[in-house]
Amino acid sequence: MRVGVVGVGCTKFGKRDITLQELAFEAVSEALKDANLTQDQVDLSVVGCVGTRSYELMPAVPVNEYCGFSGKGPIRVEAACATGSAAVYTAYTSIVSGVVDVAVAIGVEKMTEVETSVSLAVGGRAGNYLWEFHQYGTTFPAYYAMHATAHMARYKTTEKQMALCAVKAHRNAKNNPKAHFQREISVEDVLSSRYICYPLKLYDCSPISDGAAAVVLASEKVVKELNLDAIWIDGIGFSSDTSNMTKRDGFVGLKATVDAAKMAYKMAKINPSDLDLACVHDCFTIAEIMAYEDLGFCKKGEGGRFIEEGESDFGGKIPVNTFGGLKAKGHPLAATGIAMVYEVVKQLREEAEKLQVDLKNYKALTHNVGGTGHFCWIFIFSR
Amino acid sequence: MRVGVVGVGCTKFGKRDITLQELAFEAVSEALKDANLTQDQVDLSVVGCVGTRSYELMPAVPVNEYCGFSGKGPIRVEAACATGSAAVYTAYTSIVSGVVDVAVAIGVEKMTEVETSVSLAVGGRAGNYLWEFHQYGTTFPAYYAMHATAHMARYKTTEKQMALCAVKAHRNAKNNPKAHFQREISVEDVLSSRYICYPLKLYDCSPISDGAAAVVLASEKVVKELNLDAIWIDGIGFSSDTSNMTKRDGFVGLKATVDAAKMAYKMAKINPSDLDLACVHDCFTIAEIMAYEDLGFCKKGEGGRFIEEGESDFGGKIPVNTFGGLKAKGHPLAATGIAMVYEVVKQLREEAEKLQVDLKNYKALTHNVGGTGHFCWIFIFSR
Repeated sequence: MRVGVVGVGCTKFGKRDITLQELAFEAVSEALKDANLTQDQVDLSVVGCVGTRSYELMPAVPVNEYCGFSGKGPIRVEAACATGSAAVYTAYTSIVSGVVDVAVAIGVEKMTEVETSVSLAVGGRAGNYLWEFHQYGTTFPAYYAMHATAHMARYKTTEKQMALCAVKAHRNAKNNPKAHFQREISVEDVLSSRYICYPLKLYDCSPISDGAAAVVLASEKVVKELNLDAIWIDGIGFSSDTSNMTKRDGFVGLKATVDAAKMAYKMAKINPSDLDLACVHDCFTIAEIMAYEDLGFCKKGEGGRFIEEGESDFGGKIPVNTFGGLKAKGHPLAATGIAMVYEVVKQLREEAEKLQVDLKNYKALTHNVGGTGHFCWIFIFSR
Repeated sequence: MRVGVVGVGCTKFGKRDITLQELAFEAVSEALKDANLTQDQVDLSVVGCVGTRSYELMPAVPVNEYCGFSGKGPIRVEAACATGSAAVYTAYTSIVSGVVDVAVAIGVEKMTEVETSVSLAVGGRAGNYLWEFHQYGTTFPAYYAMHATAHMARYKTTEKQMALCAVKAHRNAKNNPKAHFQREISVEDVLSSRYICYPLKLYDCSPISDGAAAVVLASEKVVKELNLDAIWIDGIGFSSDTSNMTKRDGFVGLKATVDAAKMAYKMAKINPSDLDLACVHDCFTIAEIMAYEDLGFCKKGEGGRFIEEGESDFGGKIPVNTFGGLKAKGHPLAATGIAMVYEVVKQLREEAEKLQVDLKNYKALTHNVGGTGHFCWIFIFSR
């Protein structure tokens, strides 16, 4: 049975002085309105929330209640920075299994309740706690710096090429009213920003943002009965990998992305070249370059050239992160994967306004990573 | 498509001086051995963990890796004390949807890493944080005490009837080698134990335990191909309710249980009288009495008499919590719902040894509550 995305909502990302519940409600109410459905028509609510930065330790109940889903099936999922996609997955399988007809997946994160240093330290625990975090203090800029130096050493990838990812992200985010940052930056801005962990500089890193996104999924039966406008989920891929970096085969890519992509392309019966656009997990600029390669948009090692030659920009081989990416739209952990679905749906419906890409096959992909590939979730959509 | 439970494992519950990962592995390895399957044959691992009491803030990755599931689909779920059932649900729908063939659901909790007072305070946040917990300091003994006083006032339920639930639990747990407590207690022991929150005394409350449980689920196709011994999942029910007690219609039962039961009985096409046994969520003795009524084992208000007349004991209308219940086996939050499946599978396979009940229809139910009915999950199984 096919499952369609019939409604999407997303809050403005950034520092938001409202509660976790209120953030969620903002996204949910937009998604329900977009779907032209009410809470009564929803059978299951899946709340994605990493949540360790908020006073709400078990966020599903307050979020559900505030959003009007008391009495509905409730569940919270978490898969670090890929939490949003895990929520979409749980909603999707609940519908395909026939247990429910309509489900909402919510991703919400209130990250600015604690200071940046605390947020970074808490985030570091998504890595390998006992060995790498506790022993060496490794947090995520350091993890991705290892990937960046490895990629630079092996493939001559440059800091400038990485900077181009950030510049593209900010250029796109300027036209995205939901983005945390809405101003352009130059390559020089990136290169002259302070090092967080060599070779990654401030502008190579995604920010700490509050935000929420929500999608309403429905069975094909309901889509037809209610004559809803659906974007279909054609493929799903997921994988995981060891959190212990010393056990990895290498650092120039994420094996979890490669494996999840294989699964998703197979299920959707398409090749990367069939895609009209993609949203990839650019928590750091090097992550976007590795994603080009691991997702098969170009060969391994050619990611730097791919951005340099404009292949991931409007008019290129495959526009990537036209919404501004995690880098400039923001990265409220659990919201991110669902916000990608929001973007893809807007694009495939040709509602992306200034950021609209040219559509040929009406197919798009989302790529959401937890940790450094500890989790990877990929979805392929079509109109 | 039908889904079968093909392997079950459960650790000894209690104060365990091993890590979260090691606890999980103990259950997983038992479950895989029981199923006669290896990690390679598992497609998806769903880790249930509330986890707020452990240093592992994002437990799915370390648990998965330690259990040998790196590279598999990973997801963590949480639904407060009903987390284990939410994990089983996610594994179940993943299989019925056709995305995977074999999935493992793991429930693991390391609760004794923090002091009891901290654990209680953290647990209180599963209630209504801003209003009831933050404002009034309400924690779970207090919540269930409200239910108990309401039930006593309306139905003349007595402290002695509640005590009988604890006595039965301890009597059964004595013969369960996995139980936290393995000694009998008397009604007098319960009645003379100190009040935690009137009318609930120490022996009316489930303990704080470490523990893990795991189940391996497989599609009917795989069950047939590999000739596995399966206990089938015939029905699923879930619901939720407001966390704000002031918004509830009453306190003599849990609406979420009533609604979830209706859904599960309908899906399994059975009545309560068809069940050979049930595992219910007796986090407090009053919860077991309310469960008898809300699940339809007796009429509303007759739960006290039901236990008094031995109807929930061996040889009664429906033996309940023959494994010792949360009360005496222990209640390591996320492990609980999965440990119930473990017990039901052992019973339906007639492997429950000294605790074996007489089977007529080979049908059993598990009932797992989060908060005070903020979440409720029910499964119905058959051989």
